[in-house]
Amino acid sequence: MSKVRVGVVGYGTIGSRLADAVALQGDMELVGVADVAPTLPLRALYESGVSYRVYSVDPEKVGTFAGAGIPLAGTLDDLLSNIDVALDATPGGIGAKMKDLYRSHRVKAIFQGGEKDDIADVFFHGYANYEKGIGKDFLKLTSCNTTGLVRAVDALDRAVGMEKVAITIIRRVADPGDTHRGLVDVLQVEKVPNHQCVDLMKIMPHVQATGLLVHTPVTHGHIINLVATPKKSISVEEVIATLKQHPRIRVVKIADGFNSNAAFFQYARHMGTKRADMYEIGVWEECIGLSGKDVMFAIYIPQEAVTIPETIDGVRACLPMQTDRLEAVGLTNKYLGMHLRP
Amino acid sequence: MSKVRVGVVGYGTIGSRLADAVALQGDMELVGVADVAPTLPLRALYESGVSYRVYSVDPEKVGTFAGAGIPLAGTLDDLLSNIDVALDATPGGIGAKMKDLYRSHRVKAIFQGGEKDDIADVFFHGYANYEKGIGKDFLKLTSCNTTGLVRAVDALDRAVGMEKVAITIIRRVADPGDTHRGLVDVLQVEKVPNHQCVDLMKIMPHVQATGLLVHTPVTHGHIINLVATPKKSISVEEVIATLKQHPRIRVVKIADGFNSNAAFFQYARHMGTKRADMYEIGVWEECIGLSGKDVMFAIYIPQEAVTIPETIDGVRACLPMQTDRLEAVGLTNKYLGMHLRP
Amino acid sequence: MSKVRVGVVGYGTIGSRLADAVALQGDMELVGVADVAPTLPLRALYESGVSYRVYSVDPEKVGTFAGAGIPLAGTLDDLLSNIDVALDATPGGIGAKMKDLYRSHRVKAIFQGGEKDDIADVFFHGYANYEKGIGKDFLKLTSCNTTGLVRAVDALDRAVGMEKVAITIIRRVADPGDTHRGLVDVLQVEKVPNHQCVDLMKIMPHVQATGLLVHTPVTHGHIINLVATPKKSISVEEVIATLKQHPRIRVVKIADGFNSNAAFFQYARHMGTKRADMYEIGVWEECIGLSGKDVMFAIYIPQEAVTIPETIDGVRACLPMQTDRLEAVGLTNKYLGMHLRP
Amino acid sequence: MSKVRVGVVGYGTIGSRLADAVALQGDMELVGVADVAPTLPLRALYESGVSYRVYSVDPEKVGTFAGAGIPLAGTLDDLLSNIDVALDATPGGIGAKMKDLYRSHRVKAIFQGGEKDDIADVFFHGYANYEKGIGKDFLKLTSCNTTGLVRAVDALDRAVGMEKVAITIIRRVADPGDTHRGLVDVLQVEKVPNHQCVDLMKIMPHVQATGLLVHTPVTHGHIINLVATPKKSISVEEVIATLKQHPRIRVVKIADGFNSNAAFFQYARHMGTKRADMYEIGVWEECIGLSGKDVMFAIYIPQEAVTIPETIDGVRACLPMQTDRLEAVGLTNKYLGMHLRP
Repeated sequence: MSKVRVGVVGYGTIGSRLADAVALQGDMELVGVADVAPTLPLRALYESGVSYRVYSVDPEKVGTFAGAGIPLAGTLDDLLSNIDVALDATPGGIGAKMKDLYRSHRVKAIFQGGEKDDIADVFFHGYANYEKGIGKDFLKLTSCNTTGLVRAVDALDRAVGMEKVAITIIRRVADPGDTHRGLVDVLQVEKVPNHQCVDLMKIMPHVQATGLLVHTPVTHGHIINLVATPKKSISVEEVIATLKQHPRIRVVKIADGFNSNAAFFQYARHMGTKRADMYEIGVWEECIGLSGKDVMFAIYIPQEAVTIPETIDGVRACLPMQTDRLEAVGLTNKYLGMHLRP
Repeated sequence: MSKVRVGVVGYGTIGSRLADAVALQGDMELVGVADVAPTLPLRALYESGVSYRVYSVDPEKVGTFAGAGIPLAGTLDDLLSNIDVALDATPGGIGAKMKDLYRSHRVKAIFQGGEKDDIADVFFHGYANYEKGIGKDFLKLTSCNTTGLVRAVDALDRAVGMEKVAITIIRRVADPGDTHRGLVDVLQVEKVPNHQCVDLMKIMPHVQATGLLVHTPVTHGHIINLVATPKKSISVEEVIATLKQHPRIRVVKIADGFNSNAAFFQYARHMGTKRADMYEIGVWEECIGLSGKDVMFAIYIPQEAVTIPETIDGVRACLPMQTDRLEAVGLTNKYLGMHLRP
Repeated sequence: MSKVRVGVVGYGTIGSRLADAVALQGDMELVGVADVAPTLPLRALYESGVSYRVYSVDPEKVGTFAGAGIPLAGTLDDLLSNIDVALDATPGGIGAKMKDLYRSHRVKAIFQGGEKDDIADVFFHGYANYEKGIGKDFLKLTSCNTTGLVRAVDALDRAVGMEKVAITIIRRVADPGDTHRGLVDVLQVEKVPNHQCVDLMKIMPHVQATGLLVHTPVTHGHIINLVATPKKSISVEEVIATLKQHPRIRVVKIADGFNSNAAFFQYARHMGTKRADMYEIGVWEECIGLSGKDVMFAIYIPQEAVTIPETIDGVRACLPMQTDRLEAVGLTNKYLGMHLRP
Repeated sequence: MSKVRVGVVGYGTIGSRLADAVALQGDMELVGVADVAPTLPLRALYESGVSYRVYSVDPEKVGTFAGAGIPLAGTLDDLLSNIDVALDATPGGIGAKMKDLYRSHRVKAIFQGGEKDDIADVFFHGYANYEKGIGKDFLKLTSCNTTGLVRAVDALDRAVGMEKVAITIIRRVADPGDTHRGLVDVLQVEKVPNHQCVDLMKIMPHVQATGLLVHTPVTHGHIINLVATPKKSISVEEVIATLKQHPRIRVVKIADGFNSNAAFFQYARHMGTKRADMYEIGVWEECIGLSGKDVMFAIYIPQEAVTIPETIDGVRACLPMQTDRLEAVGLTNKYLGMHLRP
C-alpha cells in the first residue's frame, strides 16, 4: 500500500515537530517542509544531517537558502503538487491566506489553533470528535491548552460522564528562547470565560465550562487546575486509574521528583527525546482532591508538542486513512512511541 | 484616655509596616521597634527622618547600630518593660523562642502566620472571628494568603452562606528584592490540600475547603481563583455588590487598566502610599463568572501589607480595646484610611 | 519674581514623575498635565487627592475622563496657551508629531530619549553639557541608561580626565507592571556598539566608548559595568571619594544590604519616597576594582526616575533661568531633596 | 588494547552527562553510575532503555531503587572495585568525603568545580594546562564559567599573547527545572573580583584578570563579556578567525537567529542532541568590538555541558592515556562529535 504523502508548511515550533512526527508514521511519507527563510530550526536541521527536502515558500527568496548552505528541493508549488495533505504550521492568521493555495492544488489541509474557526470544515480533536473529521477537506486543530484540556475531560467523560468544569489556566507566556513575547514579574489576568472553555464546549457541547486564564512568566508548559463535576461520584483512585489508562496522559508523583511543569521537561531531556519533547499531558497524583462531589486535579500541558499527535490523527481522519477512532489514534500512538507504561 | 502602648519586634517586611500602622492609630502609641541588626529597613527609617525609637534585640550587638549611625533607645528588655502588647514580626519559628520573654514581661503578643498554631491561644482573623480573640494573651494571625482568602469568603458567607470552596493559589514565590528565595522559569506544585484551605476551615469550620497551590516566579502579589459553592444562588452582580461593600476589598476593572497583580502595585505607587502598599485585597469585575450554581472569582493578595489591618484588629481584641467586632475593625480601617470609595 | 510656567504632556511613567518634580521646584509652577485617556496613573492621581489640573490631549475624548470621574481643566490647546515650556513625555515617536503644536503655541519643549536626535536643537545632559542648552527652543534628553552613564563618566572625567570606556549594559527589559514588553528566561544580546555608547560620545566627544547591551528579564533598574581608562591613574579610594561628592550618585555597600538593583528599590520603599523612586544612580563600593590602569565599576540606573533631574535642568537651561551650570543643577537638586549624605 | 574503565559517582546534572560522554569514547568503558537514590535522571535513564549499570551509593538504600523498578548492579564499593578512574559528580563539598574512598580503592578521581582546590593535585583545564594533569591521582576541574572563560582566553593567548582581561559575568542563577535556587526580578551583584577571575589566574598565571559577577534570573547559560588586552594588536576579523579554529568554540551570527543565550539551547533542541546539550561555548560575531587596543567580546557558557569535554580530557591526562595535549583533546573532540564546521 502506498503511503500517504504529507507536506509541512512552516518549519517553526510546531512545524518542525510535525515533520518529525510524520516521518515516524509507518504509513505516511514526509514529502518535505517549506518555509519563507532559512530560520534557526532549518539551519539546525541541515547541520544535524537529517535529510528532509526543503522548499522555499517565496520563489524570490531562494537565494537566502543558498546563502545559508541549505539545498532546496523546490518551491511551495512543487511541494503542494506532490502531497495529499498539507500540515499548515504558519504563524497565526497566515493559514487563512494559504487556504486558497491548498485548494487550488487540491490538497487537503490541517490548520493549527491560531487560525479562526471558520477556516475549516470542522474543529477537530483526535480523541474527542475523530468521527467529525472523517473525509473533510479542511480541519482546524484545537490550541495547545484546549487539546490537553479536552484530552483529560474526554477521558473522564467517557468513564463517568462529565457535567461541568471550572478551570484555572496558569499559562506559560512564551516558549523557550522566544524574544517576541514575554512578561516580567507579572501575573496578567484575562476576563472570563477564557477561549479554551468556549472551545471545549464546541468540541464537547454536552459539558458546561468556564474558566480564568492567568499569564505567567515561564516557558516550560501550562498548568490547568480543573474543578470538574462528574455525573456520578468518582473517587481519587478511580480518577487516577482512568487517566493512567490513557496513552496520551502521564500520571506522575511529586514524591518521585515531578514537582513542577519544568520537571517534565527535565525528565524528557534525560530520556533523550528529540527537543526534550513529551507528547503526553501530565497529572500529579498528589494534586488530585475532592470538593464534595467535584473532582479537583491539575494537568500539565507541554505547549510545543501536545498538539502533534492530534494533528497526525487529523491526517488519518481527513483522507480518511481509518474510520475507527480508536484504531486511528492507536496507530498514531504506536508510531510516536506513546505506549502505556507498566 | 491613655493610649495603648505597642512595640514591634522585628523590623523587616512585616514589622516595618506594622510600626507605621500602629503609629497611625489614634488610640495606640508606638513605643518603639526592635531588631537584631541595622538592616536596610532600619537604615532607611533613619535616613528618612522618621523618629521611631529603636531597640537592640541582642545587647551584645549594640555597637553595630552605632556603626550605622542609628541611635538606640535601649535593648529589647527596655522595650518590653514599656509596652502592653508586642507585635512579633520575627522570622518564622523565632516567635516561639520569644514567647517566654513576652510572658516574663507580662506583655501580650500577636504572632504572624509563620509560627505554629500552638504558639497562641487563638488563631485569629479580625473580620471572621474577632470575638474569639477578645481578652486572650497570645494571638496568631493567619498567613497572608489565608488572611485575604478568609476576608473574601467571610464576606460572601455573611451575605448568602457559603458551603464549600475549591481554590487555586497562584503564589508569588518571593518578595521584591528578596535574594534568599526564588524560582526561575518554573511553576512548582504542592500536594493538595494546601495549608491555606486547612487554615480557612480552622477559622470558618462550617465551610469545606480544598485547593492547589502553585508557586510562580513573581513578586507583586498572589492570585487566588475560587470556585465557591454558596448556600443559595447568587448573581455576578450580587457578588460585585457584596464585595464592594467591604472596606478591605477593592473591586476593579481590567478595562480601567487593572490587568494584573502588578497593576495594583503600580496604582499604589502612583497613589503615593508608603512603600506602594495597599492593605486591600483586589477583585476584578471581569473575572467573576458562574459555573452552575458555583461562583468563580479571583482575588489579588498584596502579601506584604495584607495582614497589617487584621494584626491591628488583634491589638484591639486581645486587651481588649473594643468588644464589638464591627466597631473594632471600623476603627482600624478609619485610622488606616481604608474608607470605601464612592 | 513670577514662576516659570511648565506643562507636562503625557502622564505615564516619565510624565507623572516630571509633574511631581516640577511641583517641587520653588521657582516653577506646574500648570497642568495632559493625556489622551484616563489612564491608571491619572486615576491614582485623582484618588490620591493631588489636585493637578488635567487636560485632554484629544478634544473628542473629553467624555472618557468624565466617565472616570476625573474633572478636566481643558484641552491640550488650553494647556499650551498657558505655559512657557512643555515637558514632552509622550510615547517614543509621538513627540515628533507634537513639535509643530509646541512651535505654533510658541512654547519651548523638552523631549525624552525615545525621540530621534534631530527633533531638538541640542542633545542635552544637565551635568555634562548644560551650557549647550542655554536659550535653545528644543532640547532632547539622553535616555535613562545614557543619563546615568554620562553622570558617572562626567564625574570622573572632571576629576582625572577620561580617555575611553568599554561598558556592559545589563538592561532591565520592562518596567514594573508593564504587560507590553518582556522576556522570559532569556538573555538577549544586541550587536555592538550599543546606542548608549554612541550617545555618550555625542555628549562627551573627547571620550571613546564602546559596549555590549544584554536584555535581562527584570524590572528594577539597569546595571552598567564600566571598564574606564582614565587619563591619569586613580585609586579605588579616589574613585569612591569622587563619586560620593556627586549629589546625584549614591555610593553604597553590599555589606550594608545593598546587594542588588532591587535593594535600591526596597530601600526607597522603606524611605517612603513617592513611588519608591530614587533619582540617584547607585555605585557599590565592593564592586570597584582596578585592571591595570583601568578602573572597573558598576552603576545602578533607576530607569523610571533617573532622567527627571536632568529634565528639570533642561527647563533651567532653555529659558534660561540660570546660565551657570552648577547653580542650575544645584537648584534642581535642592528642590528635589538630593542633598549629599554625611 | 583494553579500554580504560570509568565510573561516574553522582547521576545528576553533571554526572548524567559525563556518563553519556564516557560511553561515547571509543577508548573508554563506562562501567556504571552510582547515586544515593532513584532520582528523576535515573528513572528517565531506565525508562529510556539505556542500559548503564546502576550502583547504590548507600547500601542501606538499595530498596528504594527496587521500589522504582530500577535494577542495581551493586553498591558503590562494587563499582569502585572495577574501575580505573572515578568521575566525581556529587554535590559540592561531598567529593571531599568521597576522596578517602577513592584512595582506599586505589582509583584515580576527577572532581568538579564545586570542591575546594586542595582536594586535588592539580587544578585542571584540558586545553590550557593538560600537561600538569599527566599522571596525577586527583584532578579538579574548573567550574563551568571558568572552563568556558579559559577556553576563550587560552585560544587568544596562544594566538597573540594575552596581558589582562576585565570581565562581566552575567550568570544564570539556576538550571532548568531547579526548585532549590532562584531569583525573581533581581540582578544580584557580588564583590569584585569574582572567583572565576582568580581561578583563571591560577590556570594562566601570566594573565591578569578581574571581574564583576551579576546573578540573573535565567537558566539557559551564562554570558561573559570580556574586555581583553592582547600583547599585540588584533583586528576583529583575526579574533573571529582565531576563535573559529577552536573545536570547542562556536562562532555564530545574530543575523542568523542566534540573538540570545537561549537561542543556542533552541538550536541544540532542533539539532536533536541529547538533552539539547551543546559542549561548545558560543561567540556572537556582531558582539565583537575594539576599545583602543583592547578587544571586547562576549561568550556564551552552556553551564550544564561545558565542563564535560575537559573532564574527559582529565581522564586522558591522569592515567595517562595520552601525553600530548593536542592528541588528547583531539580524541575527546572526535568521540564527542565536536568537529569543526565548514
